[in-house]
Amino acid sequence: MDKEKALEIIKSQLPEKRYIHTLGVVATAETLAKKYGANLKKTELAAIFHDYAKYRPVVDMTSIVIEEKMDQKLLKYGRELLHAPVGAYLVKKEVGIDDEEVLDGIRYHTTGRINMTLLEKVIYIADYIEPNRSFPGVEEVRLLAEENIDDALRVAITNTIHFLLKKQQPIFPDTFATYNQLLLKEEF
Amino acid sequence: MDKEKALEIIKSQLPEKRYIHTLGVVATAETLAKKYGANLKKTELAAIFHDYAKYRPVVDMTSIVIEEKMDQKLLKYGRELLHAPVGAYLVKKEVGIDDEEVLDGIRYHTTGRINMTLLEKVIYIADYIEPNRSFPGVEEVRLLAEENIDDALRVAITNTIHFLLKKQQPIFPDTFATYNQLLLKEEF
Repeated sequence: MDKEKALEIIKSQLPEKRYIHTLGVVATAETLAKKYGANLKKTELAAIFHDYAKYRPVVDMTSIVIEEKMDQKLLKYGRELLHAPVGAYLVKKEVGIDDEEVLDGIRYHTTGRINMTLLEKVIYIADYIEPNRSFPGVEEVRLLAEENIDDALRVAITNTIHFLLKKQQPIFPDTFATYNQLLLKEEF
Repeated sequence: MDKEKALEIIKSQLPEKRYIHTLGVVATAETLAKKYGANLKKTELAAIFHDYAKYRPVVDMTSIVIEEKMDQKLLKYGRELLHAPVGAYLVKKEVGIDDEEVLDGIRYHTTGRINMTLLEKVIYIADYIEPNRSFPGVEEVRLLAEENIDDALRVAITNTIHFLLKKQQPIFPDTFATYNQLLLKEEF
């Protein structure tokens, strides 16, 4: 699918502000993909569609998690987690993209996971640092992303866990596992 | 084993400062046990012996974790975790205490675990708030411990995870699981 067609589709799914965020993620992901050697075309598609399901009703996303036998833990850890795996499912079903590397980039962009691929790291970081983002700690991750994508990922995930702890929200086990793996620098 | 004999044994294992800390843990654990209804005698023994292995050489503790086929993940997450499970093992072997409730109070006093018993919670919190402790956040946990031990435990574990994140140290999966369970308020 060419980029223009993909952008046309995603524009129809998102409010303007979220579409502008998406354009920021796409531009940032392109830069990171070139810098670190991820497949540019696949990275672009994952970036374009990463928030495809963001505005679907929670009840619909919940049904999909149940009916498609996704990880049922997703239902316990807060609605913010649902749009990523459900997005991967819907992008395949409704848009017709069936490249699993692209779909995994969408699927894991919120929680991370152990043994993340380069493409997944690029999407995660691009979503975190794209130019419209402004929150404590983002500038440090922007600088790190120019040097070492694993360092950027480690600090971004650390910040995310701090944020969730402060809000006293549960933290998805895969996010903890990703943090630990980045610290222990081991294959799991 | 009576309390005086137990204190005599632990005094021989610890430098004076750590023995004074232990006396603080014992007194605090007794207060919490009475308040929340934990078995007083068992709580006392777990409190007295909770740091029994704290000053054993790391190489000895590592050997015990390996030879006794304990959770081998313990070896990856930093030496600070070893003295609790190794302590439970040595208190059984060397001191002759074989009550598993007491030993579990020792075994999980650093990491926590899901489905912690009341006695385990009492030891964890007493170790955190005993009067000689002084660090940011301890006073909040002291106050919570007077009202609700699960709230005290939740905040203590939250503070501990914040602390480890700031030091960029890996975090034992059971500690994360304990945090999540306290937030989700579910049996696992």
